Amino acid sequence: MSNESLNCSVAIALDFLGDSWSFLILRDFMVFGGTRRFEQLREGLGISRNVLTERLKTLLDQEIIRKQPVEEGGRRMLYKLSRKGWDLIPILAGMNQWCLRYRPDPINSAFEFIDAEYRKEIDVVTVRSQDGRVLGPPDIRVVPRNDAARGYFQKFATPGKTAVAET
Amino acid sequence: MSNESLNCSVAIALDFLGDSWSFLILRDFMVFGGTRRFEQLREGLGISRNVLTERLKTLLDQEIIRKQPVEEGGRRMLYKLSRKGWDLIPILAGMNQWCLRYRPDPINSAFEFIDAEYRKEIDVVTVRSQDGRVLGPPDIRVVPRNDAARGYFQKFATPGKTAVAET
Repeated sequence: MSNESLNCSVAIALDFLGDSWSFLILRDFMVFGGTRRFEQLREGLGISRNVLTERLKTLLDQEIIRKQPVEEGGRRMLYKLSRKGWDLIPILAGMNQWCLRYRPDPINSAFEFIDAEYRKEIDVVTVRSQDGRVLGPPDIRVVPRNDAARGYFQKFATPGKTAVAET
Repeated sequence: MSNESLNCSVAIALDFLGDSWSFLILRDFMVFGGTRRFEQLREGLGISRNVLTERLKTLLDQEIIRKQPVEEGGRRMLYKLSRKGWDLIPILAGMNQWCLRYRPDPINSAFEFIDAEYRKEIDVVTVRSQDGRVLGPPDIRVVPRNDAARGYFQKFATPGKTAVAET
């Protein structure tokens, strides 16, 4: 059973999330309300033109951002986070909180996610059941969704041991 | 303002999450209830001994997993996901859902996260306010938490534009 045939959605998300420039660009969009120009990103992040161009291209290809001219018919471009890009917020907020909890050094605390209306930190990002119960690790299982994954699960489970989280 | 002085917690989390082997190892722990032996991981993932040893070392150094002998005094080792490791579940579940929503190809759907008691898919991982309201992108802001980040925020904000999500 190869890595590839079990390729997980998450591994694919990491294609771009796992690149620290892509991440910083994405965060910059979120910090500044979803719209940035090339020069703002370049100057703000201290990133080279080439690297920025390349990372923006990936984010555009993934439809995580879109571009449009600053003025109609003009050559200068605005980049905007798409809905797909904004939908990464729970993931980034969860990462932010996880790091603040486990590595609370000052360099780790540059930005936080807040509730815009009440100006308060957001709640801890958790997993819930469909009826709204907060689920801790022992209440959650990761289960196969297709035959390849089911085969893997059956072949490599520890005999006599159910797959329940022990914390 | 350099990348480093704005170093974000999330970028640090990506040190290991961004590596696809580390991710697959982590997922394997979750699929199989948090406990794996070296040979199970190696055989299941089809990973070389060297690469597996190195990735496990990183995860041990990060205290995302712990190790203990299979039998007291024995040489064979068990690896167990720590609380810190289990606390990555909301992030991984969020990534999994994001990918299933936006790239629903079959290869993308190997595993899913379920509520162990009711055997149902978990709810969509969302951001909530501290009083429990679900917050969409326009209700969330990413704001500076320290002076360096505040300076960055002021210097690079688009004049006349408030930082509100437009979706």
